Amino acid sequence: MIVAMQGKATEENIQQVIERMVELGFNVHRTTGASQTILAGVGTPDHFDVAEFKVLSGVHEAYRISSPYKLAGRSFRPEGTKITFPNGVVVGGEQIILMAGPCSVESREQILTSAKQVAATGAQFLRGGAYKPRSSPYSFQGMGVEGLKLLREVSNETGLLVITEVMEISQIEVMLPYIDCFQVGARNMQNFNLLRELGHVRKPVLMKRGISATIEEVLLSAEYILSGGNYDLILCERGIRTYETYTRNTMDISAIPVLKKLTHLPVFGDPSHGVGIRDLVPPMALASVAAGADGLLMEMHPNPDKAMSDGAQSLYPQQLQALVEQLRKLAPVVGRSIA
Amino acid sequence: MIVAMQGKATEENIQQVIERMVELGFNVHRTTGASQTILAGVGTPDHFDVAEFKVLSGVHEAYRISSPYKLAGRSFRPEGTKITFPNGVVVGGEQIILMAGPCSVESREQILTSAKQVAATGAQFLRGGAYKPRSSPYSFQGMGVEGLKLLREVSNETGLLVITEVMEISQIEVMLPYIDCFQVGARNMQNFNLLRELGHVRKPVLMKRGISATIEEVLLSAEYILSGGNYDLILCERGIRTYETYTRNTMDISAIPVLKKLTHLPVFGDPSHGVGIRDLVPPMALASVAAGADGLLMEMHPNPDKAMSDGAQSLYPQQLQALVEQLRKLAPVVGRSIA
Amino acid sequence: MIVAMQGKATEENIQQVIERMVELGFNVHRTTGASQTILAGVGTPDHFDVAEFKVLSGVHEAYRISSPYKLAGRSFRPEGTKITFPNGVVVGGEQIILMAGPCSVESREQILTSAKQVAATGAQFLRGGAYKPRSSPYSFQGMGVEGLKLLREVSNETGLLVITEVMEISQIEVMLPYIDCFQVGARNMQNFNLLRELGHVRKPVLMKRGISATIEEVLLSAEYILSGGNYDLILCERGIRTYETYTRNTMDISAIPVLKKLTHLPVFGDPSHGVGIRDLVPPMALASVAAGADGLLMEMHPNPDKAMSDGAQSLYPQQLQALVEQLRKLAPVVGRSIA
Amino acid sequence: MIVAMQGKATEENIQQVIERMVELGFNVHRTTGASQTILAGVGTPDHFDVAEFKVLSGVHEAYRISSPYKLAGRSFRPEGTKITFPNGVVVGGEQIILMAGPCSVESREQILTSAKQVAATGAQFLRGGAYKPRSSPYSFQGMGVEGLKLLREVSNETGLLVITEVMEISQIEVMLPYIDCFQVGARNMQNFNLLRELGHVRKPVLMKRGISATIEEVLLSAEYILSGGNYDLILCERGIRTYETYTRNTMDISAIPVLKKLTHLPVFGDPSHGVGIRDLVPPMALASVAAGADGLLMEMHPNPDKAMSDGAQSLYPQQLQALVEQLRKLAPVVGRSIA
Repeated sequence: MIVAMQGKATEENIQQVIERMVELGFNVHRTTGASQTILAGVGTPDHFDVAEFKVLSGVHEAYRISSPYKLAGRSFRPEGTKITFPNGVVVGGEQIILMAGPCSVESREQILTSAKQVAATGAQFLRGGAYKPRSSPYSFQGMGVEGLKLLREVSNETGLLVITEVMEISQIEVMLPYIDCFQVGARNMQNFNLLRELGHVRKPVLMKRGISATIEEVLLSAEYILSGGNYDLILCERGIRTYETYTRNTMDISAIPVLKKLTHLPVFGDPSHGVGIRDLVPPMALASVAAGADGLLMEMHPNPDKAMSDGAQSLYPQQLQALVEQLRKLAPVVGRSIA
Repeated sequence: MIVAMQGKATEENIQQVIERMVELGFNVHRTTGASQTILAGVGTPDHFDVAEFKVLSGVHEAYRISSPYKLAGRSFRPEGTKITFPNGVVVGGEQIILMAGPCSVESREQILTSAKQVAATGAQFLRGGAYKPRSSPYSFQGMGVEGLKLLREVSNETGLLVITEVMEISQIEVMLPYIDCFQVGARNMQNFNLLRELGHVRKPVLMKRGISATIEEVLLSAEYILSGGNYDLILCERGIRTYETYTRNTMDISAIPVLKKLTHLPVFGDPSHGVGIRDLVPPMALASVAAGADGLLMEMHPNPDKAMSDGAQSLYPQQLQALVEQLRKLAPVVGRSIA
Repeated sequence: MIVAMQGKATEENIQQVIERMVELGFNVHRTTGASQTILAGVGTPDHFDVAEFKVLSGVHEAYRISSPYKLAGRSFRPEGTKITFPNGVVVGGEQIILMAGPCSVESREQILTSAKQVAATGAQFLRGGAYKPRSSPYSFQGMGVEGLKLLREVSNETGLLVITEVMEISQIEVMLPYIDCFQVGARNMQNFNLLRELGHVRKPVLMKRGISATIEEVLLSAEYILSGGNYDLILCERGIRTYETYTRNTMDISAIPVLKKLTHLPVFGDPSHGVGIRDLVPPMALASVAAGADGLLMEMHPNPDKAMSDGAQSLYPQQLQALVEQLRKLAPVVGRSIA
Repeated sequence: MIVAMQGKATEENIQQVIERMVELGFNVHRTTGASQTILAGVGTPDHFDVAEFKVLSGVHEAYRISSPYKLAGRSFRPEGTKITFPNGVVVGGEQIILMAGPCSVESREQILTSAKQVAATGAQFLRGGAYKPRSSPYSFQGMGVEGLKLLREVSNETGLLVITEVMEISQIEVMLPYIDCFQVGARNMQNFNLLRELGHVRKPVLMKRGISATIEEVLLSAEYILSGGNYDLILCERGIRTYETYTRNTMDISAIPVLKKLTHLPVFGDPSHGVGIRDLVPPMALASVAAGADGLLMEMHPNPDKAMSDGAQSLYPQQLQALVEQLRKLAPVVGRSIA
């Protein structure tokens, strides 16, 4: 930590800051300039809040210089994390991985048709919600455990892996037998109790960026899962909230290369939620891969115009097919491949 | 709902939209203009997503015109909601209610001192966290049930009511014997499972606005609690995330009069989280009341420089005392009073 | 400036940073910690861009610790700036100053009626646009010099001062004979050529915060005017752009106390543009004054429903009258008065 | 325009709205539903402000359904705009056009070296600022007309076209003899007086999106230039301001396909300002082209570590070279080519 004192700070002010730094476990180096004193705190105490220093008397500014996350940082595993699934699919390797499917599981027929269409494109994962977080209590809330069973059944039939959203601690146990990867939605990225529990599970997790989470907050939330011992974590950019209303969210494509630089964890893009408008999904999927994404999570529905949720952003099956063909041509340009 | 078709929409496009509207339960009135056709859907189907219409062929724009919330709307209870607590304190009446205390319960001595200082100002509620949502897994996470017991004990001693944050469904039962009001933090404003459970409880809830929640989303989340049968709900503005970094958040003071207009529920302001800097808390507390707040939630610590969390935004006891005196003079200017 | 090196930075990296700092005119103090080296640059070179250091090899982070503005800083004139107008009105003193009037000058009758209504409330300034910045080229663009003449004429008749917006360098000379205060609109807060010219004028300026300007950018833009020698500058918060769409902008009330702390310049609030909805103007005007504003800029129109621009946010004359009466009661609560 | 009345609106309220609509030039169609009346205004009056209707008594909501821009809309020129430059280079065609160069012209040697390096990559335009908009009055402000002359001279020598920023009306005449394309910076996107003058010039303009401009505002500003008769206009996404601070701005890649859909004008991406960090420029350049950009504007400096402005985001010459080679492979994936 560095504390820059004000020009007019008194020696007493300076001593108070030094004392507090020492109390927290820092070794303090002092630079006395002509116009300003600077205190450098060396060491990495576990608990400290840099904001606390900003309001001490005589302080001009205080900066944290060590990352507040440790296990999520790139230097913890410079070679990058690879996650191997039961059927041999590897996330985080040279191959770009595709996850697709409807927003919600609606019926056996709907999810089976979806699975076949997804498998036909060469994608590796079927996505589909059994429990749905909906802004309104009057919207469709998902099929629950019945949906989980259907997901497992049709995935077995089509050779796909299953990813689905977990919203609550009590659902973890229920889900375990049916799924291959937990998904933590944007609204739960700071549901710390849920994250901590997922740290104790031995099954991969894909965690989406919160709708207004900073990149640092994404990595701190990742730390909750990693520090529980679950290192099989995928991060996913899915759009942030800005003033622009034409798109549902503003997909922060730059978060993909930034995260690739800061962390060893695989990074996906979710262009469906990123923009929320079907015809914008293909360009944003291409942009995600061009910017370095390790995979994509996309909504597709056999009949989007009749979908019970998120129909407006779901691709038609033939759109997904065409997009995957285009992605397959794009991947080698950035040194990757698609199965 | 209203759907404005594009100038170049075909009759087939128009018929497709009409059919879908009818299917959802709308009666459709059609206006054929020289350059554009407009379809007005009358009726209020339970499930529908206006975004779905925006992407149908030939559609220029689609607007939802009914509010998606019902019980939270002002018209449901035009006279406003008043919540009476066991000791007779009324939230939502003519009197402005004050809640103050430390961010976290840290020890018996700290919370007892806090309670005495809070009671001395005339405030009605003691706040203090027993379970803490922290961005980092390495930060202090709260004293848990031990903290709840201390809160109850010192509040009984000082005649205060207790408000504390609930982060997870399993904590609800644990908390019930010790507290007077649940607090839902900003990070859980869209933890719909938690909200639903709080709808089944018969104890008041104060729900904070999420860090990037729209006003409509606040009211939809309120609807989750109300629709469970718990009508004793207080809303609280606590700052939103913007590009400005000088303050911790940007406190949206205008949300106070907007919410007062749209809903019958009492509306509080939390200037401590709103700005995150101690010296800015008093002006923002005054601004909240000037703008129509029914109460304030504020952080105070007997010794903020040693606080285990949020010390930078906690008032010194004498600051709180002085602020309350100033608020007492301000209240009559806006037709209110402070005990 | 402070540069924190990465743990793995080489001695060569460190030397490169030191050289560049010295080249810019800094004296460099080096702290070598167990895990990290910190370089403190003492001195205040005129030209340097802290971002340049952030991308040098081996650099973890770089921080500017001196304010990039000098003349605008509070320490330049700790007692605060007072601006005295020809008729003796003082901005920045104990008295809160009110500026009101229509968005645009539309006709002699309209502006004369406005002026009389404004004067009747006790306000000191008549506002009204002669040149209008409009998002669309098809909207009403103002009456130009004819409007300026009308403003002067009716102000003389009613004893008011005139404030009006300048959009372009060539308008400065045209306006000088007719007005008492230039207004720089939000869209021109970073029109640096215009600001520089206004620095050479000897007439007060009120500069609004840009719609997404940080507080630091506001003060840097102020520096453009001050560094030209014009110290009679008023700053004005008028709402920033956020994701919330219920209000036209989000009025950042906290910017008022923050600016009062950082600069010696008077700070106003403009609740009309801040929220954009007539009925929200009074609570936000009260909140501005409660938070420490030195004055208010408000839109009022004799007949807002027929206004040629911004009718939706213009107060009815009787609303302004009632609001000023309420403000008069509020001012003493914060140690101020209203004429 | 559509006005949805409140359920409780009186017949008098409805008549007042109808009268105002008719007064503005609308034909009004009324739909009386069981719970709500809807008024559809047909016609396209020149002046009207939809906000005005939102605050009339009894109005629930009002929507503008016609685009407020006409000449910029895709339907005005469905085949898309192609701009042909004197040397035959076409912007808006099948070929993706590259513009590169330093932030500022600093010296003859610097700009000549830059031009040679830019030409060597196959790019068509040399960019370089002669007049610089700088947040601080103490930063380097550009070489002025001397810079313009150098730009022309080295471009002639290397066969490049010249694009440079115009900040002020008086600079237009000065620039005309030296340049091939005007650039309007983000800070001037709503400098309407400047835009209007550029509408009267017969030389192409590239206009950047303002730092917090909505897509609709971009198109309205375009309308200012087009309505003056200058149809040779290029739009450019360059990052918007959000809460994320890791990158200088958040580059809104989705704005590229959105603009391509809404307007016939060519759309470029500026990844240098979009992210502000050199190493993120290549992935964002690739993402821009993958998402459909017609060209790129990029900063490159022969020696970025010594640049007088924006060094942190300027590519090294060899980085630009490598990036262009990668872009050349990417272009065919999206049906385009690079010279």
